[in-house]
Amino acid sequence: MKIIILGGDGFCGWPTALKLCANGHEVKIIDNLSRRRIDKELGSNSLTDIAPISQRIETARELLGDISFANIDIATDPKALKDLLINFKPDTVVHFAEQRAAPYSMIGEKERNYTVDNNIIGTHNLCSSIVEVDRKIHLVHLGTMGVYGYSKAFGAIPEGYLDVNITQTKKDVEILYPANPGSVYHMSKCLDQLIFQFYNKNWGLKITDLHQGIVWGVQTNETKSHKDLSNRFDYDGIYGTVLNRFISQAAAKKNLTVYGTGGQSRAFINISDTANCIKIAIENDDFSSERVRIFNQVAEVKSVKQLAEMVAGQYGVSIDFVANPRKELAENELEVSNQGLKSLGFEPIFLNKGLVDDILYLANDLTQNFDARNVLTSPIW
Amino acid sequence: MKIIILGGDGFCGWPTALKLCANGHEVKIIDNLSRRRIDKELGSNSLTDIAPISQRIETARELLGDISFANIDIATDPKALKDLLINFKPDTVVHFAEQRAAPYSMIGEKERNYTVDNNIIGTHNLCSSIVEVDRKIHLVHLGTMGVYGYSKAFGAIPEGYLDVNITQTKKDVEILYPANPGSVYHMSKCLDQLIFQFYNKNWGLKITDLHQGIVWGVQTNETKSHKDLSNRFDYDGIYGTVLNRFISQAAAKKNLTVYGTGGQSRAFINISDTANCIKIAIENDDFSSERVRIFNQVAEVKSVKQLAEMVAGQYGVSIDFVANPRKELAENELEVSNQGLKSLGFEPIFLNKGLVDDILYLANDLTQNFDARNVLTSPIW
Repeated sequence: MKIIILGGDGFCGWPTALKLCANGHEVKIIDNLSRRRIDKELGSNSLTDIAPISQRIETARELLGDISFANIDIATDPKALKDLLINFKPDTVVHFAEQRAAPYSMIGEKERNYTVDNNIIGTHNLCSSIVEVDRKIHLVHLGTMGVYGYSKAFGAIPEGYLDVNITQTKKDVEILYPANPGSVYHMSKCLDQLIFQFYNKNWGLKITDLHQGIVWGVQTNETKSHKDLSNRFDYDGIYGTVLNRFISQAAAKKNLTVYGTGGQSRAFINISDTANCIKIAIENDDFSSERVRIFNQVAEVKSVKQLAEMVAGQYGVSIDFVANPRKELAENELEVSNQGLKSLGFEPIFLNKGLVDDILYLANDLTQNFDARNVLTSPIW
Repeated sequence: MKIIILGGDGFCGWPTALKLCANGHEVKIIDNLSRRRIDKELGSNSLTDIAPISQRIETARELLGDISFANIDIATDPKALKDLLINFKPDTVVHFAEQRAAPYSMIGEKERNYTVDNNIIGTHNLCSSIVEVDRKIHLVHLGTMGVYGYSKAFGAIPEGYLDVNITQTKKDVEILYPANPGSVYHMSKCLDQLIFQFYNKNWGLKITDLHQGIVWGVQTNETKSHKDLSNRFDYDGIYGTVLNRFISQAAAKKNLTVYGTGGQSRAFINISDTANCIKIAIENDDFSSERVRIFNQVAEVKSVKQLAEMVAGQYGVSIDFVANPRKELAENELEVSNQGLKSLGFEPIFLNKGLVDDILYLANDLTQNFDARNVLTSPIW
């Protein structure tokens, strides 16, 4: 297939692009390199060294397959996006081109506005271009489990749609799961959902929205195959996801910092599974476009405290419980369906397997890149 | 009170601004004059002659009260918007600054993108600025009944929130009414709603969202008081609302054009009631900001066919049933609660009263401005 990866220079986009190209697809990465710019803006860094995009692409072409790159900002240049669709003629467009950190979106006005401007306008420009160019293009979007929120009243989290009985009419209906975002970033993904619903309803666009859990891990088979292909590894308080922060703290022999009681239950997925799930969604595109297909892209549910205790026990470090900078429930239960992707062949990697590899890799090679000042940098919201 | 009217040069914004200033409030209109630009773009025109904004303001200051104007595009210049809030120190900001025509939003890619860029980014910039400047500012937003859609399963339309029983947990909960927009314009108002929900939840912003029905009528007591204050009257297939189109067709002795069977039931409100309801919402701002306050700003429900028959019978013209350019149910029932505004003193103007005034005014003075080529200009969606 011919596949465009929007945001293919990022933490999830890059390993996904490599996996697809290694599996024989023709891949074109589109990225405005904003993630590298934000590193500089925040004074943060990837724990791993990451090659410039030109070097990434050159090495990937040599080692893996047909892959190319163009620098386009899909939020500010809809014409370039449309021309790209016209010229490249993709079967599938994978949309990772969104500002992806909840803490970043809560730093202040500039970051709130950037997150909405970039994410919503980018998503809408994409849908609007597909209507013009070819309505058969399959749009695969990376959503987030954070669109659901953590309401106990709603029970186990289904895949996108919720069964309810309307009190007034006593009718049973299925509705889009009521949005309950916890940050401007999560809000932006809730807005994306409504855009998809309408573009699907009015123009029949074929859309898969993947509500992903919190990603852990760094490398995949492809990113490990050459130093130029290494994936980025954020461990800071803004872009670092919780388990990756713990792992890098442990590798640097620092105490783990848990927000609040650590009683927050969340869904997790390994970075290799991210790439694998996207591949599964792309290759299984024979579904009715009568409505948006929504899957939960998650492997398992853990509490933050469980994660911390596991890492602390295995690597002999302690846990510091710090004030929670976020507005969220101190404790919650969580049960999540992931039957959709499983029914298409997804076999999740669970938390213990794989983890050791990454930790060793970090501990041996990368502690000199670790800057402890970057860990507790989350804004308060 | 000190009140900012964003979009105060438009069809609803202008009479509202005048009413508030005539009632002793200090009013500042902000507008980028986009509606006048779109007239030129579409080759359409207001049936009434409308004065330049400077002349409008000068005459309104002489005759009615304290009113001023600044040209700011709130979607593209968030800094100017923020400076305005800092310097003017409003008690209330009324937000009409959105592209407001469903047909315009469905013309093509440019118009879809403009509608989303302008409406969503404008709304978000406003919320984001209020967080920075003063979270006690009351934000009054003009929503639309079109966010609800026309699902029979959901029964009579409540004010913003819907009671449901969750099938899985058997719990009774109240949710934001599931969005079901019929155009990109309506979709933009659904996105606005989610922005309001989050900004209310996270920062406690005090927000009233008014889901308005289809507006009919042209003049209010204030706009009638001097020719410079005249309101605009759109009768074209893009910006003309259905009853106003019928009235202008009848005045020009043309047949009325009904889309489809005319069995579409919709909620209506007179332009004087629009201004009055906004005034009521502003002056009754002593409500808990624990959630977004949502009212349905409507007077009554009629089918399109009922409207056409009434106008045709009264003015001796015929009805042409033409192919419906829109994707919508051919026939629907509709029942709408408007208890919220009524409980604060709203006494609706119903369809027969007031109508004759407007018709006569048009018939006598304005048929020379009527261009029949502008009537059937709706895009097909």
